Amino acid sequence: MRTLEHPRTEDLQLDAVLSALADPIRRTIVRQLADGHADQACIAFALPVGKSTSTHHFRVLREAGVIEQRYQGTAILNTLRAADLEARFPGLLTAVLAAT
Amino acid sequence: MRTLEHPRTEDLQLDAVLSALADPIRRTIVRQLADGHADQACIAFALPVGKSTSTHHFRVLREAGVIEQRYQGTAILNTLRAADLEARFPGLLTAVLAAT
Repeated sequence: MRTLEHPRTEDLQLDAVLSALADPIRRTIVRQLADGHADQACIAFALPVGKSTSTHHFRVLREAGVIEQRYQGTAILNTLRAADLEARFPGLLTAVLAAT
Repeated sequence: MRTLEHPRTEDLQLDAVLSALADPIRRTIVRQLADGHADQACIAFALPVGKSTSTHHFRVLREAGVIEQRYQGTAILNTLRAADLEARFPGLLTAVLAAT
């Protein structure tokens, strides 16, 4: 099984997190993860973009440390790293999710 | 006197604000404005970049609505739009300034 790389909580970079969140499609993903359960498959997100663009957005979020991704068979399951983000950048995710 | 354009508070866009803040040089500017007085001249910021790059960063912050800029003679004075940002995106600027 291929392993997906994730930054450790202490290595999360504000530049990368803010850039990752500065996109409406990526915030749609984050919002759905925040509102729902962990381990949501990429295919469960009704995004107005094609598959490769969608995959790109999930990867940006993972590499920034905003989400965790893991394989389950051929699917990739996504979980918001809410606690890690709160530990590293207190209040940031809450403020972004509250914004409209 | 040339007038500098600024978005109105209600027109501030989260994409633009997060992108503007996702740069360490621009956060240095924001931090110095947050720690100090209003109306700081661009020349008062000891930034590790050249003049045109510096001017670019100030413009990105202004166009995103993060700072207000106004002419005083040939100088441009800068003020953080902390209250406008707080009104539009509560907690966001505080969280970004608290992050290290």
